[in-house]
Amino acid sequence: MKKIGLLGSTGSIGVQTLDVIRAHKSSFQLVTMSFGKNIEKGLAQINEFQPYIVSVETKEIADQIAHQLPSHVKLVYGAEGIIEVATYHKMDLLVNAVMGSVGLKPTLAAIESRIDVAIANKETLVTAGHLVTQLAEKMGVELIPVDSEHSAIYQCLEGNIEKEVSRIILTASGGSFRDRSIEELKTVTIEDALNHPNWNMGAKITIDSATMMNKGLEVIEAKWLFNIPYEKIDVILHKESIIHSMVEYIDGSVLAHLGSPDMRVPIQYALTKPERLDMYEGKKLNLWELGALHFQQVDYERFRCLHLAYEAGKIGGTAPTVLNAANEIAVSLFLQGKITFLQIEEIVEKALMMHRTSNSPSLEEIVSVDKDTREKILSYIS
Amino acid sequence: MKKIGLLGSTGSIGVQTLDVIRAHKSSFQLVTMSFGKNIEKGLAQINEFQPYIVSVETKEIADQIAHQLPSHVKLVYGAEGIIEVATYHKMDLLVNAVMGSVGLKPTLAAIESRIDVAIANKETLVTAGHLVTQLAEKMGVELIPVDSEHSAIYQCLEGNIEKEVSRIILTASGGSFRDRSIEELKTVTIEDALNHPNWNMGAKITIDSATMMNKGLEVIEAKWLFNIPYEKIDVILHKESIIHSMVEYIDGSVLAHLGSPDMRVPIQYALTKPERLDMYEGKKLNLWELGALHFQQVDYERFRCLHLAYEAGKIGGTAPTVLNAANEIAVSLFLQGKITFLQIEEIVEKALMMHRTSNSPSLEEIVSVDKDTREKILSYIS
Repeated sequence: MKKIGLLGSTGSIGVQTLDVIRAHKSSFQLVTMSFGKNIEKGLAQINEFQPYIVSVETKEIADQIAHQLPSHVKLVYGAEGIIEVATYHKMDLLVNAVMGSVGLKPTLAAIESRIDVAIANKETLVTAGHLVTQLAEKMGVELIPVDSEHSAIYQCLEGNIEKEVSRIILTASGGSFRDRSIEELKTVTIEDALNHPNWNMGAKITIDSATMMNKGLEVIEAKWLFNIPYEKIDVILHKESIIHSMVEYIDGSVLAHLGSPDMRVPIQYALTKPERLDMYEGKKLNLWELGALHFQQVDYERFRCLHLAYEAGKIGGTAPTVLNAANEIAVSLFLQGKITFLQIEEIVEKALMMHRTSNSPSLEEIVSVDKDTREKILSYIS
Repeated sequence: MKKIGLLGSTGSIGVQTLDVIRAHKSSFQLVTMSFGKNIEKGLAQINEFQPYIVSVETKEIADQIAHQLPSHVKLVYGAEGIIEVATYHKMDLLVNAVMGSVGLKPTLAAIESRIDVAIANKETLVTAGHLVTQLAEKMGVELIPVDSEHSAIYQCLEGNIEKEVSRIILTASGGSFRDRSIEELKTVTIEDALNHPNWNMGAKITIDSATMMNKGLEVIEAKWLFNIPYEKIDVILHKESIIHSMVEYIDGSVLAHLGSPDMRVPIQYALTKPERLDMYEGKKLNLWELGALHFQQVDYERFRCLHLAYEAGKIGGTAPTVLNAANEIAVSLFLQGKITFLQIEEIVEKALMMHRTSNSPSLEEIVSVDKDTREKILSYIS
């Protein structure tokens, strides 16, 4: 019985993590969880999974639900609460499925407590990859990818020798707008952007998929997870999202991970690796039903955010923090209808240009740069 | 320095094995080799690689070349000679790259001498899979696949757990005639058949590829190499031959091995596994250059030989020996212009129908059934 903690239980990845736990009750137990504001869904999850500790975003939400909880559940809240959820000492694995940079501190706290972390929260590695991977190595803690692309790479590396990797090839669907020209992108709506062709995901990540910033964040994440230079990380457009990613070796062999798009597969693998469990309701892949898989080179002018992510990654230091913070704010402004789709990349580029990078930043510096970046953008947009 | 023995040095796989050894002289040394009749090529190989023992097909050939060899080379011939080449005690790995059932006895002899065997000679496993795998297990010897499909599967199994495999999926190009109807097949010529779209191989295997008997033999080979029932082995048409084969796991994950068609890659992996060496002249795979990979269901009426191979495999015992012997003779008759292309499958089917299967046959029984099958077919064809 593996004891699991879950940050972000009511989000897309959180709900699917609970699907996996539900499907294999004899293998997994949810011992702690956190969620933000979605009280209804959160309460239902607490009643079903009966965790020991639950954290919510604010004291107000905690007060509102306190009387509705089973008596053995310890209720906590806020920044301290989420740390308590992330460091519960009887836990085998923390699944970090929160969105955005709020996932960073609990990840570091879990590693500090020698708890393995399954990372769905890519901002953690994007903004503080050097801190997280150094600490993980020091504490002997494993970081396990949950993203389908990184899980694919992780699986294609199993049984192989790291130094014989010549290239990591991340596949990208191209998102909601892969077939539209830059001209057409000027007028796309929020509804258009939220209509992703292959994956059913949250709003922020769906927009990031349309700008391909999501792939850019994944490139930076891959650099840290697999300790590989940017020169050896490629992105290829693959609209069917059937090949989840690939690893090329020095002998020309390419190992790929394929499957029907279903996030429960990589989530489950993160919970079971190197073993696998049945995926009862999962759709098995029959390639002849698809007929063909398609591939295309990425146009880095068309997908400017991906280019900016490579640039920020190569600069390193606080640059990826700026990239990520600027993107989070820009996407949020787009979802509020305050800026156009193409202004997302403009805002990110401007933020990077205005920033003076600091190398090997501390956690405090990262948090401060993150905050400054957001405030600056808000000040000149509104 | 790995000491390598090579059976069938002048054939297609033999020559490419020597290419690999030549490219990595500090890693490999050729210590023994055998070839059949191709004196010119054989002599050049001996002079270049300076093996300790060389075996040729007959005493006549031995007599003819004896005076042209470096003085330290021991020259042997015939059935006993090839056994000596296969069992040289200072050898680390035997590469069995002969064509046809002549490869069986030296394989067994090598295993008996506790020498790992890289098997390109699929007839060995097709006709005597039970004997070879039992003996290998008893002697603690590893059988390493050389076929690109089986090497792909072998690589997709590395780091994974055997009992979690739900399906092995062999890819098939469909051979020279994949786009022709049964009607058109009635009149195809030898030249048409030898024109394989993706791989440059020997004549026998190119015809086997056109009938898809090659894939059938590979199915049987996979059953023995990976100890998996026929119900879990699938074949899919994939005309580009870029995905070399796949393994599906119980969680729905499919691992695939991809690469440009180049037999030196699986040959080299058989020599180095689990490590890899650079493939300096190999063409790296860029999927966007291809644009698309295509997949199609197999039509077992159209590719009757593949159906017959599954049937013979499931029956087991001496049935695969009959399948293989009948096919070898039929292909040879076709290459001599004595029968038409579609008569190959007719001859194989007839031979299987006329045969009374014996279970768990001994080596003597296999050799006898093999001989009988050939004689019977020759008697009613000529």
